[in-house]
Amino acid sequence: MILVDGQPTDSVDARDRGLAYGDGVFRTLRMHVGQPLWWRDHYAKLADDCAALMLACPDEAVLRAEVCRVAAAGEGVAKIVITRGAGARGYALPPGQAVTRIVQSAPLPAYAAAAAGDDIAVRWCALRLARQPRLAGIKHLNRLENVLARAEWNDPSVVEGLLCDEGGAVIGGVMSNLVIARDGELATPDLSQCGVAGVARARLLRAARRLGVRTRVERLPPAVILAADEVMLCNSVIGVRRVARLDDKTWPPAGWTDILKTALYEEVD
Amino acid sequence: MILVDGQPTDSVDARDRGLAYGDGVFRTLRMHVGQPLWWRDHYAKLADDCAALMLACPDEAVLRAEVCRVAAAGEGVAKIVITRGAGARGYALPPGQAVTRIVQSAPLPAYAAAAAGDDIAVRWCALRLARQPRLAGIKHLNRLENVLARAEWNDPSVVEGLLCDEGGAVIGGVMSNLVIARDGELATPDLSQCGVAGVARARLLRAARRLGVRTRVERLPPAVILAADEVMLCNSVIGVRRVARLDDKTWPPAGWTDILKTALYEEVD
Repeated sequence: MILVDGQPTDSVDARDRGLAYGDGVFRTLRMHVGQPLWWRDHYAKLADDCAALMLACPDEAVLRAEVCRVAAAGEGVAKIVITRGAGARGYALPPGQAVTRIVQSAPLPAYAAAAAGDDIAVRWCALRLARQPRLAGIKHLNRLENVLARAEWNDPSVVEGLLCDEGGAVIGGVMSNLVIARDGELATPDLSQCGVAGVARARLLRAARRLGVRTRVERLPPAVILAADEVMLCNSVIGVRRVARLDDKTWPPAGWTDILKTALYEEVD
Repeated sequence: MILVDGQPTDSVDARDRGLAYGDGVFRTLRMHVGQPLWWRDHYAKLADDCAALMLACPDEAVLRAEVCRVAAAGEGVAKIVITRGAGARGYALPPGQAVTRIVQSAPLPAYAAAAAGDDIAVRWCALRLARQPRLAGIKHLNRLENVLARAEWNDPSVVEGLLCDEGGAVIGGVMSNLVIARDGELATPDLSQCGVAGVARARLLRAARRLGVRTRVERLPPAVILAADEVMLCNSVIGVRRVARLDDKTWPPAGWTDILKTALYEEVD
């Protein structure tokens, strides 16, 4: 089921700026027994992303009701897309604050199901992310880099690819954020130049600090990832997963993923 | 009028990857007495851009017929959008080669009408374009940088903004390509790292070479633009226009724009 501006439909205006320019933002949420997990964090992030692109963020209660309306029973995924609406041709912002809101549901991807287990195999991607501080961190609709990076492999046993920026710093996965454990601390890449600063990453860092674990946001070269005690990937759909293999490199469990998974879901919403 | 996969409609599938990820390319063409100008160049560029993104380019005759079908009488603009179609959630390329083709017409923008004259005023934009060689030159649907840059000014007397990349090289206008004349030669920015390599720019360089004028594609810092004999902007809708003013800097005509405008439309299609 899809709701566009609250109406059940499966289509949007062909002149929508989301289609013309990728002029909008989105959220992907995990649904559990018909309710969105981590809703407060998701709405706050959506509001921040809308503000960064000068988009009027829809009302929280309206959006939440629509997310619940499209949700199937049981486990699943909901997606919210906010665009700058259908406008005249040209890049200039249209007058007014009209947006299009699209809310839809999808089944849980196979890799996210509990049966998929906690440990995942990943690979390095060749594509280097461009650095654009004006868009960094925002979950916007300009995602061709992600599409090209994901097209680099077909092996279904490889769940995710790791991306570096053009300067060689590791930024994260194609669809997830990266957190490593080393020397009793957690570290995650600085996302001020590129990448998406996801809700799961923010929750995980917050949960770690509550447990008294020091967290660092910094530049992480590939060698630092390879030398880590444990490497984890997280997003709102998969939660947090341990990287058991990165191309030829393997890691035995060091215990961090289990601790953080528990903390991630105990963290107050 | 809008045609989606050949059918008159004003809507597209809400799950289209053009909307979800900006996963597609586009073309904007000038229409004259119901016919597309520079069609052969436009179709060749569309095919190149589709190939760069692993998209199946629609048949030339089908597309041309659709462009003519949506065109109004008299002067106007047609737009072609090719996306990777409606797919399952996730960045991975869907199996098969399905694309969505959207063909629509629009009136000629006021700044492109003959009454607007040939000389234009432009400004520098603060936004710096990110460098992504995998996407550079392609007229893809990830255009948030252009949207943010165009949002930097409202003065209707300023038709266009000039953009530099993060290294400080001038790349072009928000919606146009840049060509300068200096010492009897033409120069245009190297677009191997960012920017869109437009059809008008390619035709203009080809026409100049036919006239025996040397052309260079190179890194152009702002100081080189300011020191040029004549600064021109071009795209398929406006043709070629002389920059008479760039913020506080003004130029008297040096004759290049008139010569190139004639050559641009005489160039064999």
